[in-house]
Amino acid sequence: MKRTRLEGTPCPVARALDAVGDGWSLLIVRDAFDGLRRFGEFQKSLGLAKNILAARLRLLVAEGVLELAPASDGSAYQEYVLTPKGRGLFHVVVGLRQWGEDHCFAPGEERSVLVDLSAERPVRRLQLPAQDGRLLGPDDAVVKKAPVRKARAKR
Amino acid sequence: MKRTRLEGTPCPVARALDAVGDGWSLLIVRDAFDGLRRFGEFQKSLGLAKNILAARLRLLVAEGVLELAPASDGSAYQEYVLTPKGRGLFHVVVGLRQWGEDHCFAPGEERSVLVDLSAERPVRRLQLPAQDGRLLGPDDAVVKKAPVRKARAKR
Repeated sequence: MKRTRLEGTPCPVARALDAVGDGWSLLIVRDAFDGLRRFGEFQKSLGLAKNILAARLRLLVAEGVLELAPASDGSAYQEYVLTPKGRGLFHVVVGLRQWGEDHCFAPGEERSVLVDLSAERPVRRLQLPAQDGRLLGPDDAVVKKAPVRKARAKR
Repeated sequence: MKRTRLEGTPCPVARALDAVGDGWSLLIVRDAFDGLRRFGEFQKSLGLAKNILAARLRLLVAEGVLELAPASDGSAYQEYVLTPKGRGLFHVVVGLRQWGEDHCFAPGEERSVLVDLSAERPVRRLQLPAQDGRLLGPDDAVVKKAPVRKARAKR
């Protein structure tokens, strides 16, 4: 699939999906948030063929979402850790989680839960506030397109 | 790629990505939030081959994210509109947008902006509150796994 044409898009959603748009990439990021660091740990968690996992990890390193680090136990293994850019995906992963909780489970079906570490209670819902603090839903916000790029020709 | 093994997973993130895990699906959802409704509108926006777009739209309808509706102008066209489940992806799309804004643009590069419709000012950042209102980041929350499914065998 041609995705390159989205590269110059003024839409931040499209750019973000260009960087981490396939399901496996975001599942690797999820695992990294859960503390997984080694190739074998990701492979065990995702059940993914080694060559596909290796390609996805390379892509995430190339995008600056993960970086390689020496093994935390001093062994010769390399580990993958989230960069600040990778940690910036926290709300995306939480948003997917909350949507999955709402819409992808039968009543009573068991599921993992995101809890506040200090209080050990489930987190609340994500919120999108306006400048004055009102919480916004899909009908309360609109995308304002980037201005047409006349400026670029003037450079 | 085998994705079926994630179907029974207790992780809501994995289930959500099973439903809308490829980049195109979430870009179609983005377009639907922006008011696009017709096949031709999505095609023009995404520059996607007709057969691929048709397959993605079918998948989103099958997942209950989009539904078919009669054309809003009374013509014979069918339109695709977000269901409540589809509208539930709002925070996911906003999360991707804010991450894209932070990490996928050069300084000064033009980009579209999400504004509060009533105040016409940019929205604030997504927030994840704890039960007591503290805002949580990636180091403040942890996933508690679903209990091992002994209960199921006892039924």
